[in-house]
Amino acid sequence: MINVGVIGYGYWGPNLVRNLFEVAETQVVAVSDMRADRLEQVKLRYPSVIVSTNFQDLLDNPNINAIAIATPVHTHYDLALRALQSGKHVMVEKPMTSTSEQALHLIDQAARRKLTLLVDHTFVYTGAVRKIKAIADSGKLGDILYYDSTRINLGLFQRDVDVIWDLAVHDLAIMGYILPCSPCAVAATGINHLFGGTENLAYLTLFFEQNLIAHINVNWLSPVKVRRTLVGGTKQMIVYDDMEPSEKVKVYDKGITVNGSSDSLYKALVGYRSGDMFAPQLDVSEALKVEIQHFVECIRTGAEPITGGQAGLRVVRILESASLSMKQRGKLIHLVPEELALSQGAA
Amino acid sequence: MINVGVIGYGYWGPNLVRNLFEVAETQVVAVSDMRADRLEQVKLRYPSVIVSTNFQDLLDNPNINAIAIATPVHTHYDLALRALQSGKHVMVEKPMTSTSEQALHLIDQAARRKLTLLVDHTFVYTGAVRKIKAIADSGKLGDILYYDSTRINLGLFQRDVDVIWDLAVHDLAIMGYILPCSPCAVAATGINHLFGGTENLAYLTLFFEQNLIAHINVNWLSPVKVRRTLVGGTKQMIVYDDMEPSEKVKVYDKGITVNGSSDSLYKALVGYRSGDMFAPQLDVSEALKVEIQHFVECIRTGAEPITGGQAGLRVVRILESASLSMKQRGKLIHLVPEELALSQGAA
Amino acid sequence: MINVGVIGYGYWGPNLVRNLFEVAETQVVAVSDMRADRLEQVKLRYPSVIVSTNFQDLLDNPNINAIAIATPVHTHYDLALRALQSGKHVMVEKPMTSTSEQALHLIDQAARRKLTLLVDHTFVYTGAVRKIKAIADSGKLGDILYYDSTRINLGLFQRDVDVIWDLAVHDLAIMGYILPCSPCAVAATGINHLFGGTENLAYLTLFFEQNLIAHINVNWLSPVKVRRTLVGGTKQMIVYDDMEPSEKVKVYDKGITVNGSSDSLYKALVGYRSGDMFAPQLDVSEALKVEIQHFVECIRTGAEPITGGQAGLRVVRILESASLSMKQRGKLIHLVPEELALSQGAA
Amino acid sequence: MINVGVIGYGYWGPNLVRNLFEVAETQVVAVSDMRADRLEQVKLRYPSVIVSTNFQDLLDNPNINAIAIATPVHTHYDLALRALQSGKHVMVEKPMTSTSEQALHLIDQAARRKLTLLVDHTFVYTGAVRKIKAIADSGKLGDILYYDSTRINLGLFQRDVDVIWDLAVHDLAIMGYILPCSPCAVAATGINHLFGGTENLAYLTLFFEQNLIAHINVNWLSPVKVRRTLVGGTKQMIVYDDMEPSEKVKVYDKGITVNGSSDSLYKALVGYRSGDMFAPQLDVSEALKVEIQHFVECIRTGAEPITGGQAGLRVVRILESASLSMKQRGKLIHLVPEELALSQGAA
Repeated sequence: MINVGVIGYGYWGPNLVRNLFEVAETQVVAVSDMRADRLEQVKLRYPSVIVSTNFQDLLDNPNINAIAIATPVHTHYDLALRALQSGKHVMVEKPMTSTSEQALHLIDQAARRKLTLLVDHTFVYTGAVRKIKAIADSGKLGDILYYDSTRINLGLFQRDVDVIWDLAVHDLAIMGYILPCSPCAVAATGINHLFGGTENLAYLTLFFEQNLIAHINVNWLSPVKVRRTLVGGTKQMIVYDDMEPSEKVKVYDKGITVNGSSDSLYKALVGYRSGDMFAPQLDVSEALKVEIQHFVECIRTGAEPITGGQAGLRVVRILESASLSMKQRGKLIHLVPEELALSQGAA
Repeated sequence: MINVGVIGYGYWGPNLVRNLFEVAETQVVAVSDMRADRLEQVKLRYPSVIVSTNFQDLLDNPNINAIAIATPVHTHYDLALRALQSGKHVMVEKPMTSTSEQALHLIDQAARRKLTLLVDHTFVYTGAVRKIKAIADSGKLGDILYYDSTRINLGLFQRDVDVIWDLAVHDLAIMGYILPCSPCAVAATGINHLFGGTENLAYLTLFFEQNLIAHINVNWLSPVKVRRTLVGGTKQMIVYDDMEPSEKVKVYDKGITVNGSSDSLYKALVGYRSGDMFAPQLDVSEALKVEIQHFVECIRTGAEPITGGQAGLRVVRILESASLSMKQRGKLIHLVPEELALSQGAA
Repeated sequence: MINVGVIGYGYWGPNLVRNLFEVAETQVVAVSDMRADRLEQVKLRYPSVIVSTNFQDLLDNPNINAIAIATPVHTHYDLALRALQSGKHVMVEKPMTSTSEQALHLIDQAARRKLTLLVDHTFVYTGAVRKIKAIADSGKLGDILYYDSTRINLGLFQRDVDVIWDLAVHDLAIMGYILPCSPCAVAATGINHLFGGTENLAYLTLFFEQNLIAHINVNWLSPVKVRRTLVGGTKQMIVYDDMEPSEKVKVYDKGITVNGSSDSLYKALVGYRSGDMFAPQLDVSEALKVEIQHFVECIRTGAEPITGGQAGLRVVRILESASLSMKQRGKLIHLVPEELALSQGAA
Repeated sequence: MINVGVIGYGYWGPNLVRNLFEVAETQVVAVSDMRADRLEQVKLRYPSVIVSTNFQDLLDNPNINAIAIATPVHTHYDLALRALQSGKHVMVEKPMTSTSEQALHLIDQAARRKLTLLVDHTFVYTGAVRKIKAIADSGKLGDILYYDSTRINLGLFQRDVDVIWDLAVHDLAIMGYILPCSPCAVAATGINHLFGGTENLAYLTLFFEQNLIAHINVNWLSPVKVRRTLVGGTKQMIVYDDMEPSEKVKVYDKGITVNGSSDSLYKALVGYRSGDMFAPQLDVSEALKVEIQHFVECIRTGAEPITGGQAGLRVVRILESASLSMKQRGKLIHLVPEELALSQGAA
């Protein structure tokens, strides 16, 4: 049994606690939050759980093996670092940290101590995304030509992060999981409608060395909730609509086929395919439960989690560059190749 | 009765001919197309219409008062210019011309001859867009904060224009009609998946001097057809979904309200409104018919059409800059203020 | 070339004329309608077509081989009879006649003269219904357990027929085409909300000797248009939604499987299957065009049309019984087995 | 504080327990279920709750004021009766009882003891249904002309009740709440596809003395989940789609207007209205929570609950007649007027 301490019982914390109780191999021993009224909620529902307004109590508790962190982004680094230094495995909310430097440091600390560090990129563990990954890996899509995602709703205007760090982070995590390659540059545009706020609406374009482009549209000020991602391949194309109650993933046998030579300037020999559509059955397990089970397994085996520190770092690096580009109205920011970035971080 | 000659009987020409016959004040006298088989179609359905493989026959016909041009973009300028020089009123497909210089010249030629020049920005004449314009003008939306449009489908890969000139042109026309101000800069990204082709997928961000941003997502390689535009205001927000059989325009009483002072850095006093939704009844007249009736009225009165040369030029100028930006992966291109641009053109 | 005379140029007549011109083997020679303004419309669009306010002119025209009838239901029998007696092939709007006796008489007259008699059950010729038929015939659905259709909208309140004769007729035609067996009894309920009118809202249940039931919900007073049919089989189930722009037919690998013996009263060994969904590509040819081509072929070969007199009669017999049942608030009306009915008719 | 004992911890019991904890005035003291593994679940989540495999322990507990019953239908009567006889207030799952005689007896027992008896017609407490009720009561719909509901999905095949008792019960509860009058007769059809089972698919028509009809389509064997109800009025019409994530209730300004006299047999002076659509904001409180708060209030004040014994009885009486009608393939069953029925019961 892995005994978990949960730091932060705001929006996401209750989901963590509930799922940690539902997974047979984990249980929640203690919860901390600075707000006493939130701890009241914990006591009401889970009388057996120890509560505290001081997270240090959890780190000092020798009975606790792992710490789950569900606090504001700017606190992730410090809390995760202390947890690792206390010898606890760590599961930290997305985005992993506020800077890639911090992320590199956490990766290093976890590695030195042989502790598991998992970033809570929840979407990666959904039945929908795992199915898309399986389809992409099977080669059925052919070469992937574009990834285009819209993730908008009337959302909480946050102060410590902009909408890219809040919403685009999901798509960057999904892309990192399903695409065969990494972006080489990013251009982002956006706007902050509130004086003193952060950008509440943004558009990211990601460029790749390959014949591929990605785009993410995020918005806290939309009257309707849209969660739709298109993944276009040379052979098949996917529409992933997370708002659909069922049939979230649809695979279309549609596209173009380029016939013959392209030496003629005026005759594009493009053929159009329009075939069947197919909606595969999806695993409906709660993603967070699947993720916690994976966390348990990684702790046991010492394996790197699918959404481990490296995956978290990759996302943070793109987020940093995107925010930088957005401040300069879409200026192209080149992303340092991953291998290089890691070695720099290690230096 | 205005006698019209139609040049080009490909995809759009048949719609023009049908509607020109349905409007009481217009009739089609002659149609030209370089393809004999297309003219066969004309004869079969409209035995009374004169057909020719040479457009010059139409320009030379003294019985014809107006010319409608439905040919590839790169021919618009030359055909429209000759028609004006032959003393005919002109209705030309969108986009108006291939360059803003050409557009300026056509405007000048029409003005000198006191001829009506209308650009076929069809969407501006739909019941949906006219209703959105009325709502925006009424002040119900408050200040407009963003315009966000997705216009994607499995479309014909064209050789002489990229996807921006083919699809984003619609949104630029709609924006020019409903927004109270013009963009000051554009940044566009995109990709061309076919060797020797043009960009088939593109993303445009339009910046304004005001607290407003616009974004357009266009794609010829989408397995699903999406036509959805969000117009976000401080008071209300609109979702315009052209794929809905009815209720294309939905007005949401949703948004945020900023309360009190913003001197506190950490306390955003943002309130969220979530109220009723309202879908106004729309005029279901065919847009092209409404447009032709407007063309007739402008010919009669000498008034500038809603989608006259100036509107056509504004759109072409943004298209030019967007394509330029796209070639440089999102480089910001400043748009010359309109007044200045016109005077330059006149110089 | 088959020369056709069209009687009736109201709502459906223009579609007939347009398609008769588009099919290579047919052309429209003459159109009759009692309303002069309707004939004006014909002349405007098709100057070559002879028009007349007297249908007899068409029957007397030796140049005409076939007559298409698109007039109110109560006139079908008389017009079709005269056309057959004039030696013309006949294509008559649905429902075929006002009574089954009339239908039997027309079948007899056509047979005696070796003329083709086709009832315009248009839906049978759509890509969607033909695909459903193919799937059902392939055995993929297993045994069909139910057919459940909703066909509602804000429709024209008609005076000479009730909503069953106007809308349920479509479902009865589709069922007759795709189901492997015929109903043995009908129970219908409904209401007439207008004094002096006919029922504008009705519900039909059709019983079969087999383990199968059918239900049809029709309504002229619905604020939304719904066209959705479920066909449930032991192996797979179909949802046919005609309002979907594409993917009108969806095949679900869902259902139940009954395991083991049923000797236990309290243990239902029912297993639930929930698998993939599949939306086959559909032929998008206009149904009326396909139907006219079939009419032409039947005239040539002398074959019985898919929707010939027998199919038309089967539908009229159910309509009669349904209206009768509805007048008695759902009283069960047994349908005379078809073979018997035909022999009676012949007697 | 009202201390509640919950009998039955299957599908619905966990929802009851959770909501009883969330309502400030109630708490769960004990839970009983015959299955030990279900009680394990209770202990895991709510260590403070007493569990027992014998419901009698709850009835004997003097610390318990009220009993919530979430067991199979055929046990409702006996359990509710014993609870009332033990002096406990009762909240019982729908349908109230297996027979109307049982329901009458429970009403009588509760009245004698001045105990609150609430039937858990949950839908009546949803924001959607309460809004529809408010709109209907305001007169905006005009006279209600029809109620038409489809409630289908791939559902559990139950052994002790047919699909009418499982699903149509919801619509009968909603109708009883929002319609101004009660049905006078019922005709139901259906089918049982499994040997030894109950009807798994059924259609109910309800007749009224007024110019109104109701119809309910229920099905356990549908591949798709549909929850859609139309309420048609002379002035406005409502579409209530419970599967919509938001905008569940849409009010259409559509319908017909009958103009002038109806003395002419062939001229129906029917005008069609097609106006705006309006989707009111709905209270999103969880229905069960609202219902428990109402239960508390009724216990305090002694008021009859909105969904009290009388409402429960009305529903059971229609269910009985519907099942009876269904066994006879739609035979019309007259419903005894309520006043008469109650007096008979009392006799």
